[in-house]
Amino acid sequence: MPVVINGRNQIANKPSNEGRETFTAVNPRTKQTTPYAFFNAITTEIDQAVRAATDAFAQSRHFSAHKLAEFLDQVAAEIENLGDQLLHTADEETGLGIPRLTGERGRTTGQLRKFGELLREGSYVDAIIDTAQPDRQPLPRSSIRRQLFPLGPVAVFSASNFPFAFSVAGGDTASAFAAGCPVVVKAHPCHPATSELFAHAINRAIEQLDFPAGFFSLIQGNTIEVGQTLVTHPGIAAVGFTGSLRAGRAIYDAAAARPIPIPVFAEMGSVNPVILLPNAVAERGDNLAAGLVQSLTLGSGQFCTNPGLVLMVKSPETDAFIKNVAEKMNAQSPGVLLNGSIEQGLANAVATTVKRPFIQTHTGGEVVAGDSFCYANTVLQTSAAAFCNDPLLQEEHFGPVTLFVVADSMGELETAVHALHGNLTATIHAAESDLNAAQTLLMDLKETVGRLIWNGFPTGVEVSHAMQHGGPYPATTAPATTSVGMTAIKRFMRPVAFQDVPDALLPPALQDANPLNIWRIVDGDWSKQRI
Amino acid sequence: MPVVINGRNQIANKPSNEGRETFTAVNPRTKQTTPYAFFNAITTEIDQAVRAATDAFAQSRHFSAHKLAEFLDQVAAEIENLGDQLLHTADEETGLGIPRLTGERGRTTGQLRKFGELLREGSYVDAIIDTAQPDRQPLPRSSIRRQLFPLGPVAVFSASNFPFAFSVAGGDTASAFAAGCPVVVKAHPCHPATSELFAHAINRAIEQLDFPAGFFSLIQGNTIEVGQTLVTHPGIAAVGFTGSLRAGRAIYDAAAARPIPIPVFAEMGSVNPVILLPNAVAERGDNLAAGLVQSLTLGSGQFCTNPGLVLMVKSPETDAFIKNVAEKMNAQSPGVLLNGSIEQGLANAVATTVKRPFIQTHTGGEVVAGDSFCYANTVLQTSAAAFCNDPLLQEEHFGPVTLFVVADSMGELETAVHALHGNLTATIHAAESDLNAAQTLLMDLKETVGRLIWNGFPTGVEVSHAMQHGGPYPATTAPATTSVGMTAIKRFMRPVAFQDVPDALLPPALQDANPLNIWRIVDGDWSKQRI
Repeated sequence: MPVVINGRNQIANKPSNEGRETFTAVNPRTKQTTPYAFFNAITTEIDQAVRAATDAFAQSRHFSAHKLAEFLDQVAAEIENLGDQLLHTADEETGLGIPRLTGERGRTTGQLRKFGELLREGSYVDAIIDTAQPDRQPLPRSSIRRQLFPLGPVAVFSASNFPFAFSVAGGDTASAFAAGCPVVVKAHPCHPATSELFAHAINRAIEQLDFPAGFFSLIQGNTIEVGQTLVTHPGIAAVGFTGSLRAGRAIYDAAAARPIPIPVFAEMGSVNPVILLPNAVAERGDNLAAGLVQSLTLGSGQFCTNPGLVLMVKSPETDAFIKNVAEKMNAQSPGVLLNGSIEQGLANAVATTVKRPFIQTHTGGEVVAGDSFCYANTVLQTSAAAFCNDPLLQEEHFGPVTLFVVADSMGELETAVHALHGNLTATIHAAESDLNAAQTLLMDLKETVGRLIWNGFPTGVEVSHAMQHGGPYPATTAPATTSVGMTAIKRFMRPVAFQDVPDALLPPALQDANPLNIWRIVDGDWSKQRI
Repeated sequence: MPVVINGRNQIANKPSNEGRETFTAVNPRTKQTTPYAFFNAITTEIDQAVRAATDAFAQSRHFSAHKLAEFLDQVAAEIENLGDQLLHTADEETGLGIPRLTGERGRTTGQLRKFGELLREGSYVDAIIDTAQPDRQPLPRSSIRRQLFPLGPVAVFSASNFPFAFSVAGGDTASAFAAGCPVVVKAHPCHPATSELFAHAINRAIEQLDFPAGFFSLIQGNTIEVGQTLVTHPGIAAVGFTGSLRAGRAIYDAAAARPIPIPVFAEMGSVNPVILLPNAVAERGDNLAAGLVQSLTLGSGQFCTNPGLVLMVKSPETDAFIKNVAEKMNAQSPGVLLNGSIEQGLANAVATTVKRPFIQTHTGGEVVAGDSFCYANTVLQTSAAAFCNDPLLQEEHFGPVTLFVVADSMGELETAVHALHGNLTATIHAAESDLNAAQTLLMDLKETVGRLIWNGFPTGVEVSHAMQHGGPYPATTAPATTSVGMTAIKRFMRPVAFQDVPDALLPPALQDANPLNIWRIVDGDWSKQRI
């Protein structure tokens, strides 16, 4: 039975429309508004949501990892229970297409279940135990035992480009829930009905498992004020955000200016440099061109890991390669963009770039007029010298656009690598005979990115233990953390040490008997043994 | 042979006095200036220091853990080589006394060597490996391998109250060096000669082990501008700070407002609530009073973990206990304070508090006139009701001062606990018969502190694997981290993931053979095995 979209905020499992302002979403394939109106949340509603989250936290901070794992599994099941309605609603609001959305749904439910596995294994609390040394001279040593605990209510800002995996029940929410933190989601205004469906699924899981209603709320809104009110609410302990540099920085600034500042884990823009070394191009240029175009046009180029910058060394092969990529880009029909503001933003960004000196446009560079939001697949080129002199050329073109940077020599390419700003990823394509050059580049690129990819493409971010989806500013505001992968949970936890606390009063993870059977660092060594 | 104090900044192992302004330190026992003049660093000198640090980082980011461990050991040895000159210079500048300074020196060298042990063990890089699954359906899984790497040049702001352990070669510097990060220290202007001696020791270690000169610089200065210039320099990647809330917040704000914001790990004020449960007071009130007074007067009360707030339940025993503490405080000669600004700050803070309604002064509450900076050992009292209504009563009195908060009932005491702001520590003293009440309090206190102490006192912070010396704002600006203990190193590191990178190009910690023989998480389980 399909869910009836009511267009309201969902505050602690109750629909709420105290405000008067509404907004609508637009189908990017038709530029027509979708049939529902959504209520902008007002301050009192945001306050209710955060207060309910605070109340919920008084309970959820005591929940066992197993209880939280069951909840994550239930949320995954309830998302699946939304069935085709979810796919069609999201497709109508995003134009991403059913196959892609089906894949993204699997990723989203898979991610929730992976966090469930992490919780059941249990070692994620980072238990560290220094046993007492009562006979130590000159002073005895106390027993000190430390583990991570949940931080408190988390505000999550949804992304437009991943309506499932980085939205209402996406990575930020999944990792915050896994940590034991209640979540207040600010839905992305371009897919509000999709967001409401996810809220329905999460609320069903809350009912099924008798979780406190305030463990989750959904706030709708298409104004900056809604987000700012949420971030500056004293009850919010941390923020997860995926979106543009401008919006992410505004939220970071608001959080830093609070009387009690809070961390903002914002994943923002990235151009994801790809370096194609000469022998790799010579050996398998055609495969590389096909792979690059596929990565560039995935989701109409609207991936945070889109390869927006390609660095090469000047040669006839390089010229031929760029021509080949331009032809392939030109031959592929450009996809639908998520919304009018992305179309406009992309048009402005490319227009700014092509006005800079020494920029050549191989193909594209214009909005595609028609029923849909659409921008031509675009290939630009500049020299390494121009690139190094112009920081503006490192700004993101969010869409199916890449900028080739051609160096006169390997030395000049290395100079360009040194000039790179922070990015989520960097990629090197190399042949066996490029290994020496590659090693130096790899270690230099390491300084400015979160993930280094070898002979692959940056799009497609595995949800796994070792994944690092982050990087130095402006890629993120918190380069020591990741928004994808299992360590994402650490963003929403904080260590507390217990000194000489009797075993019976310690949390299970720190008790002598190790009743959770987890890995712990005991007196400096890893162990699952009891003490 | 004693070191000749030259009063200059020490920039990449070269004395520098490009500026014209100088300042002097004051002996707090005599209020007389000490014999040396020190040059305020000017902008060009700070720039030189950070540029040298950046150059040094290009080398040090490749240094092995063993090489860094040798360096830490050498710094410890060179500190010991300073001999009595260090103790006497520091005593003259701080008035802390030779016995305390001797102990603090041992703690400081011990801390450096403990980080050396951590590096030699090697697992601190948090290696996580997800092996490739080429046959996975629908898509193969890449090999993803992630570890921590050093962040870059770190600025360290020394504390006044620990001229060794939280100063030039203290915990922040030791953990940044251990991570592989160059350090630019802003010396505390109250012990500039002590700071110069430490710079000498570190520079000797740099020479002995042929480290790059820019791995360390010392900036002197008694103006706010010196610190602000350092924090806003684009070459600085992170900041460690120990000091007051006002200064820490100013640095945090400056760092957050940079074009590229950087993390500030500021450890600031704390009142460290101590809860004395009724049966503990009945059983061992006299021991508790003696222990409390000892903790309160340690280092003239100038510890970040000084127990500045004591919560009790009203009873005749409680009245007698407070009277006992007041008598003991009164009977003990007040110690010398570090400097005039601490004396003045303490006088202002206590004056502000005693002007609030419902405050009773049992003893002290005034500056002790004389040759030395000195403030009377002070005991204040208020009611839990007044405490809950007045956030100002949670502000720190930095010195030998404590405020008793007396609740009418256990319920009111719990309410007061709920009203507590962020603190470094909280302590519970309980008898066997108090355990039930204690358990609830312990779990509530956990939400607002970094360390919970059972039947002990908060002063004395063990340098160990599990230590958490941190806590929610205003105790620190980064509650997820610690400034004491082995995990302090993580503040200055950042993860990078390697995707499908050939084994020969991977850093040793991530190679199949596990040549460093470290603990790693491989496909979700801890192991030292090769893959």
